[in-house]
Amino acid sequence: MNELTISLDASSSVPLYEQIYKYIKKDIQDGGLPFKKRLPSTRKLAKFLQVSRTTVDMAYEQLVSEGYIEAVPCKGFFVCELEGIYRLETSRSPGRTVLEPEKAMPEYDFSPHGVDLNSFPHNAWRKLSKDILLEENQLLFQLGDPQGEPELRNTIAEYLHQARGVSAQPEQIVLGAGNDFLLLLLCSMFGTGKKIAMESPTYRKAYNLFCNLSNQVRIVEMDNSGMLVDRLALTDAEIAYVMPSHQYPLGTVMPVKRRMQLLAWACQGSDRFIIEDDYDSEFRYKGKPIPALQGYDRDDRVIYIGTFSKSIAPAIRVSYMVLPKRLMELYYSRGRNISCTVSRVDQRIIAGFLNGGYYERHLNKMRAVYKSRHDVLLEELKAFRKICRVSGEHAGVHVLLTFTGGMTETEAIRRAAEEGVAVYGLSEYFVGEAKQPEAATVILGYANLSETAIRNAVQRLKRAWLS
Amino acid sequence: MNELTISLDASSSVPLYEQIYKYIKKDIQDGGLPFKKRLPSTRKLAKFLQVSRTTVDMAYEQLVSEGYIEAVPCKGFFVCELEGIYRLETSRSPGRTVLEPEKAMPEYDFSPHGVDLNSFPHNAWRKLSKDILLEENQLLFQLGDPQGEPELRNTIAEYLHQARGVSAQPEQIVLGAGNDFLLLLLCSMFGTGKKIAMESPTYRKAYNLFCNLSNQVRIVEMDNSGMLVDRLALTDAEIAYVMPSHQYPLGTVMPVKRRMQLLAWACQGSDRFIIEDDYDSEFRYKGKPIPALQGYDRDDRVIYIGTFSKSIAPAIRVSYMVLPKRLMELYYSRGRNISCTVSRVDQRIIAGFLNGGYYERHLNKMRAVYKSRHDVLLEELKAFRKICRVSGEHAGVHVLLTFTGGMTETEAIRRAAEEGVAVYGLSEYFVGEAKQPEAATVILGYANLSETAIRNAVQRLKRAWLS
Repeated sequence: MNELTISLDASSSVPLYEQIYKYIKKDIQDGGLPFKKRLPSTRKLAKFLQVSRTTVDMAYEQLVSEGYIEAVPCKGFFVCELEGIYRLETSRSPGRTVLEPEKAMPEYDFSPHGVDLNSFPHNAWRKLSKDILLEENQLLFQLGDPQGEPELRNTIAEYLHQARGVSAQPEQIVLGAGNDFLLLLLCSMFGTGKKIAMESPTYRKAYNLFCNLSNQVRIVEMDNSGMLVDRLALTDAEIAYVMPSHQYPLGTVMPVKRRMQLLAWACQGSDRFIIEDDYDSEFRYKGKPIPALQGYDRDDRVIYIGTFSKSIAPAIRVSYMVLPKRLMELYYSRGRNISCTVSRVDQRIIAGFLNGGYYERHLNKMRAVYKSRHDVLLEELKAFRKICRVSGEHAGVHVLLTFTGGMTETEAIRRAAEEGVAVYGLSEYFVGEAKQPEAATVILGYANLSETAIRNAVQRLKRAWLS
Repeated sequence: MNELTISLDASSSVPLYEQIYKYIKKDIQDGGLPFKKRLPSTRKLAKFLQVSRTTVDMAYEQLVSEGYIEAVPCKGFFVCELEGIYRLETSRSPGRTVLEPEKAMPEYDFSPHGVDLNSFPHNAWRKLSKDILLEENQLLFQLGDPQGEPELRNTIAEYLHQARGVSAQPEQIVLGAGNDFLLLLLCSMFGTGKKIAMESPTYRKAYNLFCNLSNQVRIVEMDNSGMLVDRLALTDAEIAYVMPSHQYPLGTVMPVKRRMQLLAWACQGSDRFIIEDDYDSEFRYKGKPIPALQGYDRDDRVIYIGTFSKSIAPAIRVSYMVLPKRLMELYYSRGRNISCTVSRVDQRIIAGFLNGGYYERHLNKMRAVYKSRHDVLLEELKAFRKICRVSGEHAGVHVLLTFTGGMTETEAIRRAAEEGVAVYGLSEYFVGEAKQPEAATVILGYANLSETAIRNAVQRLKRAWLS
């Protein structure tokens, strides 16, 4: 056989050279063209198929580049040995997904993890992504700096200075795919067996993570200014994990005086540090914003962690950590050998988003959206003033509702669920042996509910809790 | 003042409404328009500026959405209180990067971490990325499954079955941003204080990571089939970390018999596991590919780790881990609370890359490219046969050169550097108290050097080592 009877479809969207390439590839894979078999010359095949010789050249070139055939000078093209060549059947149903048990979705979900995704800046994101991928910048696909791209660290340092009063050199910043990863990295730097002070209730993932890596967590009581520093001083804790801007889940904002006491505690031991988790500091609706704890730190004691997951979208896995200068040596010896977990493409998109002014506009827009929802929710919640007390408002994207009339948490959640509304119990956030609260409290996150949805949901809650 | 004297530039690429929006925003920020000041009506301003009313409407709408002004029904638009509104100065020099000490770049770099980035499938990647971002799929920006998207896990399970003989249900797969992260996650699941067997030399990052998290590493001797299982059995190790397809850095391929011995060792203790790091198994140039160790595992003991960083590009931070079914409970209780570190957009791109047949073509092309470079390098290295022995060839993208004539590693590296060629010493890869090798060995990675570059570089090495 000197010719290949390939039936070409000139009207197809698949280019002719690709049709020839695919036909021959399949013929080789199926054994129709065995090892060492000579292929017709490009001139002959072109004439036979009534296509240009360039078309056949391109098909053969593709086959050579993938190792199906080889060119032997003056002799022609021969089929290669197939051993080792990948033949991957692509799934017949690429859209098929793993069957996982479906959860019944509530009609109204006051999840504290929500983000308003209607406001995601699709156009800006797409444009930045397209521009960056068009650059044909090879460096973009090489492994970058374990701390993250210097350009983005520079931009984040400027942003943190302006928006949060954080004082950081780009050299102190480490990027990571999410706060959880950054906490893992910190644990790996500090080694295990550290004594870490936490509040209760708190961010449970951090608590679990510290415990899993054999650290000893000391639960320290808090009042409505946050962690009680005189109680902290009575423990043997070396590290205090706090969320001064907006404690999760209580929503407590730590006043400046308490921040100063906390910093003073840190200065009293040579190896004391504070982890400041500033996870949703961007949204604050009343009163002057308080600069981050890190901004008051004169003794190089605060490890500052922030994220774009809350302010842009949860699926944007970009968080940042500002290390005190005195920890840089430890980072170099024990942290820097972990490769960066954020792709360079994503780092470039975020940098463009900040530098292009998109982030400023997005933050102001989100702040306005969330403030309206916050105001509507607080107004509506007045209906419950005889049986509930509201707390944790004025910042973040959730509030707490404490039942003063004796309803239990389980009952409040169950009754709401029966009306198609999901609310979340505070008890889940208590860790260690700290005492559970006496009064039942539920959490209402409003980020992903429109004003109308909030009004409708509260109507349902009235049926659930007031009737 | 009822009018705003905005000088509009109709020839600018900035739309008119944006010019109006920006002017008023700046005027509010600078105090020219103070709090509570009423703005001219949209009708009046449109008439005054000689633009359509829609243009002014759009500008005001943008200002309202960002919280600069508010609409009071029947009264008009008023300037809001600015407290809390973000005003971020974007960097004057967005391209400015942190000044970091420049390293002198060698002319020819035999780095073992190289990847041929000329072959990066830019077009396919860009197309997939564009299509996915065009979908306006809100779900894409919500936090996904901690294990990774079910669709991608499904695709990876099929790929691993076909290409590596790995037997995995999508439910057993966990995605992560790089092998380092997956090892951190594993440590966090197992808790600290585990006894882990490793070879020496080995992947130093894994060694450091295990040690940093207070595990005890037992170094087990290896021969040219890999880790010696009878020596392993003499230790108290619970977990063996191995790279059977292509040991890093020695390039040893573990034969089936040794794999079976290793699996038999694992079955002899109720809590014994094997971590199979299959980091660059995709490239193999001689002989039949050997299925992954996991594929022979009948007793659910192997934790399989692989990555797209080596086969696509180092900056693609997507690795995957197949957990034995018996470890799923542990993952659910101690691992699943770490959010997924790979963005959903990247997960969708990778899924499209595999399902669209791009990955098969890319792998075959890379295999052909690397095989040619491998063949050229081995041919050229014959010049050193009187003073060196080659090993670790036939797979992966680096070979080892052991000096039999007494040249030290330091001397070999220094002399090569003087000729502008970077080669890498094996001694860096020895960990723990294992004895250093007697003969000097250097590593030559060839993934990112063209055939011509390899020939030129070896000419330089001849001047360095033979003269």
